[in-house]
Amino acid sequence: MSEMMQEIVLASRPSGAPHPENFRLESHALPEPAEGEVLVRVHYMSLDPYMRGRMDDAKSYAAPVPIGGRMEAGGVGEVIASNSPHFAPGDFAFGMFGWASHGCLPAKELRKLDPNQGPITAALGVLGMPGFTGWHGLSAYGRPKAGETLVVAAATGPVGSMVGQLAKQAGLRVVGIAGGAEKCKLAVETFGFDACLDHYAYDDAKSLRKELANACPQGIDIYFENVAGKVLEAVLPLMNSHGRIPICGMISWYNAGALGAGASDNVLTGPNIWRNILVKFLSVNGFIISNHFDRYPEFLKEVGPLVAKGEVRFLEDTAEGLENAPKAFMSMLKGGNKGKQIVKLI
Amino acid sequence: MSEMMQEIVLASRPSGAPHPENFRLESHALPEPAEGEVLVRVHYMSLDPYMRGRMDDAKSYAAPVPIGGRMEAGGVGEVIASNSPHFAPGDFAFGMFGWASHGCLPAKELRKLDPNQGPITAALGVLGMPGFTGWHGLSAYGRPKAGETLVVAAATGPVGSMVGQLAKQAGLRVVGIAGGAEKCKLAVETFGFDACLDHYAYDDAKSLRKELANACPQGIDIYFENVAGKVLEAVLPLMNSHGRIPICGMISWYNAGALGAGASDNVLTGPNIWRNILVKFLSVNGFIISNHFDRYPEFLKEVGPLVAKGEVRFLEDTAEGLENAPKAFMSMLKGGNKGKQIVKLI
Repeated sequence: MSEMMQEIVLASRPSGAPHPENFRLESHALPEPAEGEVLVRVHYMSLDPYMRGRMDDAKSYAAPVPIGGRMEAGGVGEVIASNSPHFAPGDFAFGMFGWASHGCLPAKELRKLDPNQGPITAALGVLGMPGFTGWHGLSAYGRPKAGETLVVAAATGPVGSMVGQLAKQAGLRVVGIAGGAEKCKLAVETFGFDACLDHYAYDDAKSLRKELANACPQGIDIYFENVAGKVLEAVLPLMNSHGRIPICGMISWYNAGALGAGASDNVLTGPNIWRNILVKFLSVNGFIISNHFDRYPEFLKEVGPLVAKGEVRFLEDTAEGLENAPKAFMSMLKGGNKGKQIVKLI
Repeated sequence: MSEMMQEIVLASRPSGAPHPENFRLESHALPEPAEGEVLVRVHYMSLDPYMRGRMDDAKSYAAPVPIGGRMEAGGVGEVIASNSPHFAPGDFAFGMFGWASHGCLPAKELRKLDPNQGPITAALGVLGMPGFTGWHGLSAYGRPKAGETLVVAAATGPVGSMVGQLAKQAGLRVVGIAGGAEKCKLAVETFGFDACLDHYAYDDAKSLRKELANACPQGIDIYFENVAGKVLEAVLPLMNSHGRIPICGMISWYNAGALGAGASDNVLTGPNIWRNILVKFLSVNGFIISNHFDRYPEFLKEVGPLVAKGEVRFLEDTAEGLENAPKAFMSMLKGGNKGKQIVKLI
């Protein structure tokens, strides 16, 4: 009998928060690499908020995962068979293998990793898509200037912690928002944020805004948007003129359907958002990092050494076993993770 | 008895659309220019949508006009007395004289005009603040590329007609929106738009959107925002990925109070606007032209010759007499003007 692989497919589309029945674990025969392809045994896979969007069939920037199709994910692992001159068994590689124990992809879609350069899991977080998202969004759209104030939520996550650390190095005051006192402590002590507010401690956007105003006495120049919802509602009235808002995500609205929830004090009406952009001369830019891979070498060159020297730190939260990926994913969407959520597969 | 001047002051703040009783005509003794000041008899004054915002006391990008204070406006006129070596009687100048027959300003706040270079009214429209607004917004935030499609409303106004003509010259498909068949004809025949839709012909945003989709078979890459409301609601779902939205105004919401009117089909909820910015990678930039005067010489150098050669055309709509300025202003806010609204004072 041939060797088997496991994968998790989308069993049904969630309405609101995903449930275990939206996922199904399947076994298949291990594929053989076709001409130019490489077969990889995945050691670690990544869980990221964007995957929630792929579970809907709403028109978005990426095609939805079809019902019965494998959930998408990046992963890192070891080459076990190769039909390409560019990879040999024993090599380590990053690729979009999905939620699966193995992946078979064209060599040109893989990126070789040197396990002697540090933990291969870094390719999923601090030096992978999330870290790159933070670096690109901050540099291309945030345009930080020393002395300014930046706010970012999910402060201990792989995007937020990158944004905060880079902004600190650029001489900004950096205020994080995170869920729970423990994460806030991590943001300040591990990642060097000037302050971090626990959004659970505030019943509504107004009370969060009041505390944020205290933490940002000069107002907010850059709001790096990855959560939206209550945090955006707290932040928007505090934005300074000429402020910048890079938008890479809006996790608090992902489970709320395409239109999201309403606002409690009229801050997040369409006309008021539009008016704020006009009267404060805001620059608001949405982006997805996959459109900017041309900058990836520049990112690695700049941030790789900072990670190696410990000047950019990172946290990982590791779940064990493919079968536990759905649970870890559902928990992450509610902020249950501390740092970059990964799943250890072997 | 000393010579008198007339001015129009803000008698009371409007709630919604301004009414005649919000304005009051007053007479005062003509001021004498202090050291460094210049006294100008205003020949033409400008009426612009931004003035509606100054009548509210909402926090905005500029201080409101105080009750009893002179309404703001740019004007052009002739120097009749000067206490500055830089101006002599008989010189022509542009300045922010307000709604007034005369203005007395420091010489450094005036810009000398050469009446032999064309009509001095151009300094209020095509070569003044509105034309400069169109040019700057399009070049700095619109970033037009040949082959793309641009949409702009108030197409025959001084901003919209500048934007449309410059975009045509850059090789874009240009679709205007204007109020009434006559303005649409002007947009196409005078300003060279590829098409222009009469927004009065569509009951709601959905029907306008349907026709706009026909007029923009490749979608919309640049939406130059000056009106918001129904037009924005029609446009937003048609924006292409990587689209750009410079925002210089939102006239349809100016009379609706700070929060504006709701949306009819959920397009203009805050979360949906935010989601569109993210999933379409939009770049949305609010601006006020007074922050960008450093580019004014560049604008004049580039666009001045185009106006002189007739390659950038312009339309003016002239009211007569300071006492008629409120009526002309109220009419303009409802789209009653054809081209740049000015008031002839002498």
